[in-house]
Amino acid sequence: MNGINIVSKAVSTKSTMSNLQCILIEASLSEIKLIANDIEIGIETKIEGNILEAGKIAIDAKFFSDIVRRLPDSEIVIETNVNNQAIIHCERNETYIPGTSGDDFNYLPEVAKDKSITISQFILKDIIQKTIFSISDQENTKIMTGELFEVNGDELRVISLDGHRISIRKVKLKDSYDSMKVIVPGKTLNEMTKILNGGIEDQITIYITDKHILFEFNDTRVVSRLLEGEFYKIDQMLTNDYETKFTINKKDFLSCIDRASLFIKESDKKPIILNIENSNLFLKIDSSFGSMNEELEISKEGKDIKIGFNPKFLMEALRVIDDENVDIYMINSKSPCYIRDEENNYIYLILPVSIVA
Amino acid sequence: MNGINIVSKAVSTKSTMSNLQCILIEASLSEIKLIANDIEIGIETKIEGNILEAGKIAIDAKFFSDIVRRLPDSEIVIETNVNNQAIIHCERNETYIPGTSGDDFNYLPEVAKDKSITISQFILKDIIQKTIFSISDQENTKIMTGELFEVNGDELRVISLDGHRISIRKVKLKDSYDSMKVIVPGKTLNEMTKILNGGIEDQITIYITDKHILFEFNDTRVVSRLLEGEFYKIDQMLTNDYETKFTINKKDFLSCIDRASLFIKESDKKPIILNIENSNLFLKIDSSFGSMNEELEISKEGKDIKIGFNPKFLMEALRVIDDENVDIYMINSKSPCYIRDEENNYIYLILPVSIVA
Repeated sequence: MNGINIVSKAVSTKSTMSNLQCILIEASLSEIKLIANDIEIGIETKIEGNILEAGKIAIDAKFFSDIVRRLPDSEIVIETNVNNQAIIHCERNETYIPGTSGDDFNYLPEVAKDKSITISQFILKDIIQKTIFSISDQENTKIMTGELFEVNGDELRVISLDGHRISIRKVKLKDSYDSMKVIVPGKTLNEMTKILNGGIEDQITIYITDKHILFEFNDTRVVSRLLEGEFYKIDQMLTNDYETKFTINKKDFLSCIDRASLFIKESDKKPIILNIENSNLFLKIDSSFGSMNEELEISKEGKDIKIGFNPKFLMEALRVIDDENVDIYMINSKSPCYIRDEENNYIYLILPVSIVA
Repeated sequence: MNGINIVSKAVSTKSTMSNLQCILIEASLSEIKLIANDIEIGIETKIEGNILEAGKIAIDAKFFSDIVRRLPDSEIVIETNVNNQAIIHCERNETYIPGTSGDDFNYLPEVAKDKSITISQFILKDIIQKTIFSISDQENTKIMTGELFEVNGDELRVISLDGHRISIRKVKLKDSYDSMKVIVPGKTLNEMTKILNGGIEDQITIYITDKHILFEFNDTRVVSRLLEGEFYKIDQMLTNDYETKFTINKKDFLSCIDRASLFIKESDKKPIILNIENSNLFLKIDSSFGSMNEELEISKEGKDIKIGFNPKFLMEALRVIDDENVDIYMINSKSPCYIRDEENNYIYLILPVSIVA
């Protein structure tokens, strides 16, 4: 079941019947593998078991998964017959599922292992989850639907952006590597976060070629196409300058924005307005659904400022920050604001929304 | 929040703006009430608080609920202004929600308190949940969209049916009452199961008139219209005769049917086939998606039998039976089967599906 769950992440959700909807079960002389491949992403995992006779069969992934999940928690035996059916025996149950020989199944592409990095599974999952929300879902800016993975020495940076904001996470690696830069499709990374469940000490090795990225960990290999093209020159967009800096309790700020966001619907897109005066932040929203204002304590350096935001962008950044208090940097009401820590381990850049003065 | 959750069950989900989507907050000199009424069902609940000044206002239920849920876990003050806005103060937050005066709000209808029964809240919820699944959703047989509540002496029976099956639960009451019979809308009962959270010792009083049923418990009153008409003569449909009786482990039987049900889709409605032979039950399903057979141990009295069922009907009955083993009674492959205990505290009658011999 665990193996099925892993490879199912590479099963196509489109409705045409074909190998893209199937899992290939392959028992060679030495190992049992499950494989699924929707062309964008392919996953292969080894599972433990006794091979009574070598063979293979491709069967519908969803149906196979539904059946196995419902079988008693016991040993199962899978055999194939001349009609390309998989026969699953479990205790006193016998299930026949139609399949195909698997002769035309798409195996995972070969990926050269020249360039690689090794990183903790837990950390990889964590930095993906803390940046993936700001990829774009617009297929016309294809590059924005992925994340930049950038290695410099012993530092990995993961970057996403969607035209309104940029999310950056930086982590230290145990070893140093040659510089490399690839754009990994958002879908691949989303699936990776569902599969990765190792702890901080469990490692994953990532191999990179011009066309592909290969994640190798435990008994699993995930291969994905890379997005082609040049990523945005992020560092030119960032600045450490600011006119206003304030520190605020993250949980209080997030709850307050969450309340205010209720007043914003598709039909009436108003910004929330932050009015930073002395040691107070006054948050205000006024829409056709009503209005709200709330006062929050901050500690501030620099100028007072009045600035508008789409609350969703602030909330999504704040939600993935683990710190109790966050530092927020602003220049003026038309320039991006930054939520970042001192070491720049995280930087969330968010564009403001213009407000009527 | 608790009060809002309770009365929200009587808020209309239709999209026209009106009092049917609103909660009336009414602070009289002595008590604070929340009221909602979608005409089919009306709910009123008292909440604790200090009344600074009597008054009332009707505001959108969903918006009010969303706001209050997101406010800090603290005291709130609600005031109204001349523009019929509700102003909610909570810590340093101030929220303005547009409302109406509530002058044309539909209060709960008066219900005469001549006829009543008292029952444990827990037991009432339990017997509703264990019968409600077999009401009909076909509005053209209106009576089947409700449940029969039938009192005879110190016995309450709750009955639902949908043309394929009948579900009956019987419980003892503490007191004896005159006979009464009413048909309560399924929607009302569904909402009641969401509101009732009292233990076995917490009582609820049910008042009945020709047109209405009133549930009174804790600080809450729920009034619902009754369904008009004559209910089916259930007792004439039931029999204690059987040709085959078998006892089976409920969990094993349910899991086995659940697996088999995977082979049945809208596009290919096949029955599952039970073949009862000696002390074994052979369950079989064969469809265009594949096939399955499984052997289950039973202890049997009477004849062998081969009979087909819609697996959903068996599963829904088995799921709400708490017994470890169930007794199942059959006459022949065309007559209803009965899942019932010896005291008839529960009876689940299910019609078979004809199978090709």
